[in-house]
Order: sequence, then structure tokens, then C-alpha cells
Amino acid sequence: MVHRVAVIGAGPCGLTSMKACLEEGMMPTCFESSDDIGGLWRFKEVSEPNRASIYRSLTINISKEMMSFSDFPVQADYPNYMHHSKIQNYFRMYAEHFKLLKHIRFQTLVKNVNQTPDFSRTGQWEVVTENKDGKEERHVFDAVICCSGHYSYPNLPLKEFPGIETFEGKYFHSWDYKGAEDMVGKKVVVIGIGNSGSDIAVESCRVAEQVYLSTRSGAWVIRQVSENGLPVDIKYLTRFVHILTQLLPIRILNWLCETKLNAMYDHTMYALKPKHRFFNQIPVVNDELPLKILSGSVIIKTNVKEICGSSVVFEDGSTVEKVDTIVFATGYNYDFPYLPSSSKYMSGHRLGLYKHVFPPNLEHPTLAVVGFIHAFAAIMTQAEMQARWVSRVFNGQAKLPSNQAMIKSVDKDTKDIEKNYIVSRLTPLHVDFVTYMDDLAGEIGVRPSLLWLFFTDYQIFKMVLWGPVTSYQYRLKGPGKWGGARRAISTTLNRVYQPLKTRKLETKEASFAGSLFKLSLTLMAGGAAVYYIHVRNPTTIPTLLANLRPQTA
Amino acid sequence: MVHRVAVIGAGPCGLTSMKACLEEGMMPTCFESSDDIGGLWRFKEVSEPNRASIYRSLTINISKEMMSFSDFPVQADYPNYMHHSKIQNYFRMYAEHFKLLKHIRFQTLVKNVNQTPDFSRTGQWEVVTENKDGKEERHVFDAVICCSGHYSYPNLPLKEFPGIETFEGKYFHSWDYKGAEDMVGKKVVVIGIGNSGSDIAVESCRVAEQVYLSTRSGAWVIRQVSENGLPVDIKYLTRFVHILTQLLPIRILNWLCETKLNAMYDHTMYALKPKHRFFNQIPVVNDELPLKILSGSVIIKTNVKEICGSSVVFEDGSTVEKVDTIVFATGYNYDFPYLPSSSKYMSGHRLGLYKHVFPPNLEHPTLAVVGFIHAFAAIMTQAEMQARWVSRVFNGQAKLPSNQAMIKSVDKDTKDIEKNYIVSRLTPLHVDFVTYMDDLAGEIGVRPSLLWLFFTDYQIFKMVLWGPVTSYQYRLKGPGKWGGARRAISTTLNRVYQPLKTRKLETKEASFAGSLFKLSLTLMAGGAAVYYIHVRNPTTIPTLLANLRPQTA
Repeated sequence: MVHRVAVIGAGPCGLTSMKACLEEGMMPTCFESSDDIGGLWRFKEVSEPNRASIYRSLTINISKEMMSFSDFPVQADYPNYMHHSKIQNYFRMYAEHFKLLKHIRFQTLVKNVNQTPDFSRTGQWEVVTENKDGKEERHVFDAVICCSGHYSYPNLPLKEFPGIETFEGKYFHSWDYKGAEDMVGKKVVVIGIGNSGSDIAVESCRVAEQVYLSTRSGAWVIRQVSENGLPVDIKYLTRFVHILTQLLPIRILNWLCETKLNAMYDHTMYALKPKHRFFNQIPVVNDELPLKILSGSVIIKTNVKEICGSSVVFEDGSTVEKVDTIVFATGYNYDFPYLPSSSKYMSGHRLGLYKHVFPPNLEHPTLAVVGFIHAFAAIMTQAEMQARWVSRVFNGQAKLPSNQAMIKSVDKDTKDIEKNYIVSRLTPLHVDFVTYMDDLAGEIGVRPSLLWLFFTDYQIFKMVLWGPVTSYQYRLKGPGKWGGARRAISTTLNRVYQPLKTRKLETKEASFAGSLFKLSLTLMAGGAAVYYIHVRNPTTIPTLLANLRPQTA
Repeated sequence: MVHRVAVIGAGPCGLTSMKACLEEGMMPTCFESSDDIGGLWRFKEVSEPNRASIYRSLTINISKEMMSFSDFPVQADYPNYMHHSKIQNYFRMYAEHFKLLKHIRFQTLVKNVNQTPDFSRTGQWEVVTENKDGKEERHVFDAVICCSGHYSYPNLPLKEFPGIETFEGKYFHSWDYKGAEDMVGKKVVVIGIGNSGSDIAVESCRVAEQVYLSTRSGAWVIRQVSENGLPVDIKYLTRFVHILTQLLPIRILNWLCETKLNAMYDHTMYALKPKHRFFNQIPVVNDELPLKILSGSVIIKTNVKEICGSSVVFEDGSTVEKVDTIVFATGYNYDFPYLPSSSKYMSGHRLGLYKHVFPPNLEHPTLAVVGFIHAFAAIMTQAEMQARWVSRVFNGQAKLPSNQAMIKSVDKDTKDIEKNYIVSRLTPLHVDFVTYMDDLAGEIGVRPSLLWLFFTDYQIFKMVLWGPVTSYQYRLKGPGKWGGARRAISTTLNRVYQPLKTRKLETKEASFAGSLFKLSLTLMAGGAAVYYIHVRNPTTIPTLLANLRPQTA
């Protein structure tokens, strides 16, 4: 029986893992190599080796309601997209509220995690730690949760850039970027159009002489400020949209999204258009990039072919001369250096984990990885769901399938990812947020049932169907049920609006005619969609309806 | 007969005025107090007294095709929204191309302009200048054009902010702002939500601890990146839209624009909503403000009530403490200190100028003000049209009405502005761009006739009707006709796209079905509009059609 659990890392994933362990009656000990909680969100003026690093002005691109832990909503007056300092505050409040700090051993690095000699019988692990004075300690734990993140090891693929050794300017990885102060009056080439690359390009171009943003494959770029000014995830990460994405063919979905994005700004005209379709890759989130491109402050370029002295040559043959700075926004390698290779099952080039959590090849399910995930949504909420599941598996309330079945499932995930998504070779992660949350919630027994809600709580039914899929929805029932969940769900939009009420205005009259018009349109569109789907595949709708049945927890 | 013309100021208005004089066979002498051309666009690291000032990162909010002079398009590879350094380059090329530099006397300040004793007979002016060594000179000119701008005298209404003398931080006018480097980690209150105020708020908030943007009346805020990514003026400053705005009732126009803006982001939710309607005031242009509000980096506040030490108290009673910096983005006063009061006709509190150019109370039309204008469009192109008209008036090719008629017209303008617009008390300017351009073009005889184009040049007809109202359209015929105008018009969109072609993409197939669908929609909407207008006011359409007749130049 698992009692003592080692949690490696006191970032958001570590915090919520500790909390889940405590909730399930276990005793966590968290080893944190730095001097504070927060992980990625613990800002330092100078990046520290083997730790994640963020820049000074970083604001998260997930809205607060979509990153809130399930029983601890971000406070109402915090902005929808929080600066890292506010996010760190939130984690501090979470840690204090759930009394997690006393379980953390700061400045303690985990050097090794190994199965104990009697692992076959006990499932226990030996954890070797080193404190700041270099003193080693050995501990035995019933189970281990790895929450060490996957943004700690910058990927600097210099070999792919012939001539980089001749470069006369300064180059560094985006991991080293803190602010644009060194870019004043400089000619800057940023390589990579991920969120970091485009953020750095957009920030630097205010002070730089010229910024070039080089991209191998282009990207679909979305805005955080969505229709009517709502955060884009509040608007689109709804169960209704999720159901639509399950029903409609992927070609139509891609066409819809791409048409919508091109109507904002034509990705071809803006030289951004990728070869891949919208749903093949998580889009880049950047509200400022379009204007920076239109005003020529950021110039989009192809991949870099070579570097000669201070010149950068691109694959289309064009050259930029007198480059002062190259920023490699080329992503991260993941690593769990403390884990033995025997606990790492490789599925193709991926680290294979059952449902992205459990190594599928161990005799006992006493090792879990939490937060090793990537979706168009917050890692925190998904990590929390993983931790809730992990703690239930650890204490035997939830069961895993056989090793063979898990390996089969992992290999299927690998194939699905390879088939459907373009993911980094480095960190090949990709899940569909709602599908994944619902899947794990099903394992725990906390998936909200639409049919049950329709008959028992129509107001919440509406929010669960039409509103954003917040993590509160997974606290309505079952293990870990939270009395505040109903209220948290019904007041979600209040907390979205609250921080914006900073200047009194005359109240706006609601337009009844407008609402009626919108309702009619929605009904018509819904009807047409159902008809189309039914004609196309007569089994889809009955299957879907069957899925709406109340769930036996 | 006017031959020698004094031009005061070598900014864009002065340059184009000189060019117009040369074209009409007159000899301009331009007095420029600084050491360079460019006026407002001549960037200096430290603002200079009695001169306009811009900040380091300033990018114009008018697209290059809409700010191009009529026979000198901005070069094709320049970005659509240009940084001030590129704008200055453009003016330099313009001055060199039209050989204007030799007519400019730099570092020469105009101290006084007075009617000569024989003004009644000659219409001549005595111009007193002072060079950098303090040496005065007296010159006699047949006519004078004032191009000294209206952004030189910051308005710092400290009396409206009780307690400002107790303020413990630093305060300054936006005129003094050069960049955000002094805002690092500071608490900043920006007063005024004009373009300067919102630009400064948005730039500072990247490095400041917190920025508050205080607004008395709110604002409608638009994006420069419009549908499909086109510059907003390219999309909407078309003759077709102009005709629609003449046809549809202002209430419907306001409703349409406000609904569209609120669909981008709800101005009520964002605490921006003003009491005035969209067409009452030129909107604020800022693409980044919405996200900065949503992420809480910029907090919108009401007007400031008072200041106590380091606290700023707002009219709603809320207080921000420990404020480090207050930026007064409170606009500018205009002044023509060198002009005698006898040449200034005051219409209410406005300086009254016939068609915003000629003092209506002089015996001879030999004094003109160029560039004293404000519209949702570039000052440059309107100033050029003014200059073309002025030079035609000076040399007698165009006639002004009687003083009485001009005064009547000026007073009517004042009433119209007061009735329809909310303008600054300081610089009460407001014209409708296309109406104004067409009006002056009519005076010169260069207004493009849609009907004539329809029968003689259908391709250009389409561009003139549906495309942006560029100044090239006023070089198709009549005095100053330019052989390159047709080509400049037909290649406008090429020059919009050109600077964006920085990364090769696979070519996009045109969707014939899509085009057909759009065409049908347009026709249906057009038909409905015409029907609606006809039912509402049966005389409108015949009047409009009459206006489309060929114009006798």
C-alpha cells in the first residue's frame, strides 16, 4: 500500500501532485532543487542551468479561468491573461491554502531514482538527493511522481546552421532571453516561430533596427482577444465546440478555422501560411505579430541556409547582412536524468507513457510522470487531472490495465500522433484537451454527465455544454467532489468580466431582438449540422447520444 | 501677379507647397527653423522647444498608399505602416526628386509676417526672419504659405489637476516621451486616450510595474490590421464606402460601425465605451491595446480628480498609490505666433479659414495655411491638395468667393463641426477626408468623374469606385495631370502586397465559387440598400446619379 510519495519538483505540477496525494491520504515529500516553488513561473533575472527560464514581460497565453486548479479559482480581480508575477502569486496562495509548503524540501536535487532490490514485492523506489552543501541522502518511497517539467534543456541545433562558428555577432537560445534591452538599434534574426520566437520578435522589434523571423514551416497564428473581446480559450474550448469537432470531418474543421484566421489576416499575404493544416499543430498565439509584419518591423523569412561572418543566408537565397544578434527559439529537449533507463519505455522515438503518465513496462504502477503533456490548453489543469488519477492508482482505487495492454495503447498513441500531428521531434507531445480531460476524468469517475445535468441542474448543464471546459466541471461529483464547484462554474464569466470593470460606464441595455436573432441562427446552424452529419454517417448521432448517458462512477 | 512665395516650415506640408508653387510657375523660398526637412517626422532624441516631437518607436497609423503624395508613390518594397525613419526617407526622396532642397533656408526662423504698407494694392507681405546667429533679415514676398504645423505647443492643463504641485513623482507631457526606458518597474498613469496616450500606455506596460490609462470620455478604438489583413484605410477609405456614408442615415452608420467594433472586442466590457457615437470623433488607432487591457497590463480609469503626494485619485473615488510617473497625453495647442492678429479671423473659438486654408477677411488671397487639418486620413495628402489649390489661387487660375461669402462658409463650418463632432477645444479641426479632397479637387478641376471613367477606362473606374481613395486619383486629368497616375492606381494593391513577399509560399488557387458567392452577396446587399434608400428618401438616388456626371474642368 502506497503511503510515502516522492514528488520531484515544486512547480505547478508538483504542487497539485502533492495536494492530490494528501487528498487521497498519502504523505508526499517534494524535492525542489531551487529555493522556491513555481518551476517555470519562478522568474530569475539570469537563467539557471537545467531549469526552465522565462522572460521579464511574459504573460501567459491561457486565460485565468482555463488555468485555474479545479477547486481554487484564480481570484476574481486578477486579469484574464496574467503576468508571470501574478501566476506565481496564485501558486503561492494555492500552496498556502492547501498547506503544501511544509512538505517541500527546497534546494534539494534528486540525483537518482531506482527500484529498490525488493521492488517486485514492494514497488518501492530509492531516491538519492543532494542538498545545497553537496550532502547526499538516500530515501525509500512507496511511489514517485516526476514533475520536473520539459522546458529545462534548451535545444541549440548549431550543426543545422553551417557557418555559425564564423558568426561575428552574438547568438543565444530563447531560454537566455530576458528582455529587449540588448537589442537596441540591432539587426536581429530570430529562428523559430513558436510562441517564444514570435514573442521575442515582437518585443525586440520595438527597439531593434530590424527583426527577421525565420521559419522553416510557417504557422497558423491566432489572437488571444477573440470575438467580442473574450479570451480565445473561453470562447472556443467549450464542450459544444468539442462535440462539433468530433462530429464534423477534419477537412471541414480545418477549412472553417483557416478561413476564419485568413479573414483576420490572410496567412498567405502575411507570408505565414504553413503547409500543414490548422488541426495538425497547436497554433502560435500572438496578437501583435500581424501589425508588426504589416509595419515591416518583423520580416518573415524562410529557414536559414548558412551563416557567413555577419551575414545570414536564407534558403530562398536572400541574405541579411550585418546581423548583430541571432536568437535560437528552437525549443527544448526533455530529459528525466534521474530515472533509470529500465523505467523508460521508448515507443518509436517517443518516451512512451500510458495515457501520458505511467511507464507501461513496470511491475508496479508506482512511478508516474505528471505534466509531460502538450495541448492547446494549460498544462496545469491537465497535470492536476493526471495527479488526481495518479493518486487514485497509487492507493488502489483505480486500476491500470496489463503491461501488454498499456504498451499497445502507448504504441497506438504514438501512431496517432505521427499520423495526425506535426509535433517537435524533441518533445513529441500532443493531446486534444477535452478528450484527454474527459478520458482521465472517466478513470477517476468525475466526468460530468450532460444528461444527468440536463435533468438535475439545467443552469449548470448550459454552462457545461456551452461554456468553457474549466477544471471546476470535474469537481461536481465523484471522488474529490467540491462543494464550491457549482458556484465556480456558474460565476466563471463574472470572473472574466470582473478585472475589466475599472471605469464606470452607463449600463448597456440588452437587446432582446439581437438575442432572438442569435438564437434562431444557432438553431438553424445546429439543425443543418445534425442533418448533414446524419446524411453522411447515420450511426454518428446515436453513438453520440449514447455517450451522453449518465456515467456510473 | 504672385511670383515670390514664402513657405514657412519644411515639413511635408512645406515640401509639397513648394512643389505646387514651382509647378504653377512661382518661386518659393522656404524658411525652416531647424537643420533638416521633415517637420514632425524629423526625429530627435531630445524634444526641442516650439517644435513637434515624436518618440523612438513611432510607426505611422496611415498606410503608405494613403499617405503617398499624388505623383510620387512610396516605393513598393516599403512596409505598409512605416516607421518614422522610413517616412523621413520618403520625404527626402521627394525633396530630391522635385529639386526642392535648394529653395529651403535652414536654421532660419520666421519671426514676423506682416502686410506691406501697400498691401491693398499689391497683396504683398513683409517676412522678418532670424538666422542661427541671431541676425534678422527682412524680405518682401508676393504671398505666404504657413506650414508650421499644429503639434508644436504641448497642452499641459495642470490647473485641471488639483494637487499636481504636491506630486512626488515625475510628470511630463507626451511631447517629451521618447521611449519606455524610464518606466522600468514604475507605476505609471497616462492621462488621455488619444493615439499618443494609448501608444505610450501600450509601450510602457511592457516594462512598467503597472500602467493606468485615464480617460475622461472613453474612445472607439480600431485596429490597423483590418479584414484579411489589409490596412484599415485601404479597406474602408474607398469611394464606395464614402457613397454609402452619404446615403445611409448617420444612426445606421454609427450602429454598423459600433457593432463591428464591439464584435472585435466589446467596448463596454473593455471599459472603453464613450458616450459619443462612432462618427462623432476620429477613432483611436491601436492594435495592441485590447490585449494589454485583457492582460491587465493597462488598466483603464476614469478622469483624474486630484493628486495628493504620490497618490492619484480618480473621479470614481478609486485611488492609485505610489505613482512614480504621470504622462499628460493631453494634446496640443496650435499657434501661428508670426502672423498678425489682423489676418486671423476667429469663428467662435476656432481660427476661421475658408475651406481650412484661406483667412476669409483679407483684401487679397495671398496668405494661406496648409496642413491645418484633421481627418481620419493622412495630413500629407490633404495638405498636398490644399497646396495645389493655393498655388492656383495665387496665380489667379482659381478664384475665391467674396470675403462675405467666405466668412459665411467658415461660420457654417464652425457650426457643422460643433453640431456633428466632438473635437478638441484646443485644435478644433475635423473634415471628412473624401468629401474634403473632392471639394478642393473640384476647385482645381481634378476630381475624377466616375461616369467618364466608366465609359473610357473601366479598369480604373473599378479601382476609383471600389479601391482606396489614393491621391493618385487626383492626377488623372486636369491641371497637374500626371502620366503615371493610371499605373499608380492600378498597381496600388501590388505595392500593398510587395513588402510582405518575404518568404516564398506555394501559390494559392483562386476560388471561383468563393468569388461568385461574394459577388452575389454584394449585389444583394447593394440592391437592398438602394431599395431602402429609395423608399426612405426618393430624391437621394437621382441626386447622387446627377453627381456622377462628367465634370467640366
